[in-house]
Amino acid sequence: MRIVSENRCFGGTQGVHVHASEATGTEMTFGLFRPEYPTGAVLWYLSGLTCTHENAMTKAGLQGWAAETGMTVVFPDTSPRGADLPDDDAFDMGQGASFYVDATEEPWARNFRMERYITADLPETVFAAFDLDETRQAITGHSMGGHGALTLAMKHPGRYRSVSAFSPICNPSESDWGVPQLTAYTGDPKAHDATILMAERGLSAPLLIDTGTDDQFRDKLGTAAFAQAVGTRHAEAVIRQQRGYDHSYFFVSTFAADHVAFHAEHLA
Amino acid sequence: MRIVSENRCFGGTQGVHVHASEATGTEMTFGLFRPEYPTGAVLWYLSGLTCTHENAMTKAGLQGWAAETGMTVVFPDTSPRGADLPDDDAFDMGQGASFYVDATEEPWARNFRMERYITADLPETVFAAFDLDETRQAITGHSMGGHGALTLAMKHPGRYRSVSAFSPICNPSESDWGVPQLTAYTGDPKAHDATILMAERGLSAPLLIDTGTDDQFRDKLGTAAFAQAVGTRHAEAVIRQQRGYDHSYFFVSTFAADHVAFHAEHLA
Repeated sequence: MRIVSENRCFGGTQGVHVHASEATGTEMTFGLFRPEYPTGAVLWYLSGLTCTHENAMTKAGLQGWAAETGMTVVFPDTSPRGADLPDDDAFDMGQGASFYVDATEEPWARNFRMERYITADLPETVFAAFDLDETRQAITGHSMGGHGALTLAMKHPGRYRSVSAFSPICNPSESDWGVPQLTAYTGDPKAHDATILMAERGLSAPLLIDTGTDDQFRDKLGTAAFAQAVGTRHAEAVIRQQRGYDHSYFFVSTFAADHVAFHAEHLA
Repeated sequence: MRIVSENRCFGGTQGVHVHASEATGTEMTFGLFRPEYPTGAVLWYLSGLTCTHENAMTKAGLQGWAAETGMTVVFPDTSPRGADLPDDDAFDMGQGASFYVDATEEPWARNFRMERYITADLPETVFAAFDLDETRQAITGHSMGGHGALTLAMKHPGRYRSVSAFSPICNPSESDWGVPQLTAYTGDPKAHDATILMAERGLSAPLLIDTGTDDQFRDKLGTAAFAQAVGTRHAEAVIRQQRGYDHSYFFVSTFAADHVAFHAEHLA
């Protein structure tokens, strides 16, 4: 792992790091906020379509709250990248749009193994480099990253003590944001659908979701189907529809404090 | 004035607006955060080199604190813009780099009248469009915008009840960030130098400055000369050198809460 940059931020350090990933076969860049007084707790923040490691790091406003609670926050990239890697002209496919699955279909299978990257390679690097507590991990994300947080938490029960999401894609097997991409990557959108996973497996960790009532992409998110699955399952969850908010970082930053507090409570 | 965008943000609205400016002879874009419960108080936030109205609006993290105190925050652009306007290849000259003065020299004199824009045209538009209190204005800014905040406050005594700045350019007549630009725009860097203005006129409003000890541009800022002028003048001011911080928005966002609280106290 090498340091790309470090900036002092809310008494701690906002770093950007590069490391080699076996899962993606590439170098990967990630951001990591380290508070001045880290407790060992770690929050993984998965970003949405088109984002790199940088967007949430500069716009989501998480660091101040993380600093108060001693939480380390990791901002992974949203896919492997490189001119020699497969890509697609669409903004919602290929580089910047991994959907956090391990691709099995060509041309993606070799590099687009982001589930493995997020749950194995990156934690291995982070836990080796920083003094953190592997038993106190939480996960969150925005939009496609919310989909990532929900599905990875359900596919890896026990790994994350708490789970949250900002305007997550919840039912991708019924959405333009899901069917084409998950079909291309894996051939099976239903295997990576948070609503189906909730109905079939449930989620053992407490869950918090915020989505705006005026989200410009609300028809793609599948919030209602997911809420129904949560209800049927009697899962421990708070799903909030926030009046007047849209899909932007203005929305994420507004509720960043709540999400950090939620995770801090469960990581204490 | 027309609305470009509106996003709900911390219970209020982050708007982007366009209006015609007589001072610049162009249309100008600005951001304006309106809290859910506005008190009428207004904070002008002047941005630094290369920025538009957007950078601070998305990265400085002011809105949450402004929402708490009922403060409206305006984010002007840093210069007039347009393919038919004069510009310069350097990042610190021309479009995006007005230094908030009224240019008198060619080719800048016709459009680069940003002092007049910030103190006349934009307030006129803002106070006509929103129910705000002209007697409760404060000003802040970052880097070149800090220079703008300091110099405009001293050139317009009584207009701003409180003044603050993040890593401001304080002594531009002794800096690469000042001499070439202010000479090109006005022929007279000393007339727009916060340290000289402080020594000669002083500042009647209370002042808060934060600058990082590890600011990568600290040799260009002139903080020491300004601090000396403040001391000689016995001006009401707090100048903080914050250990380990640099010039970035990670620094600005860290101290955004303090600056909003400082202004809220004086605008109450």
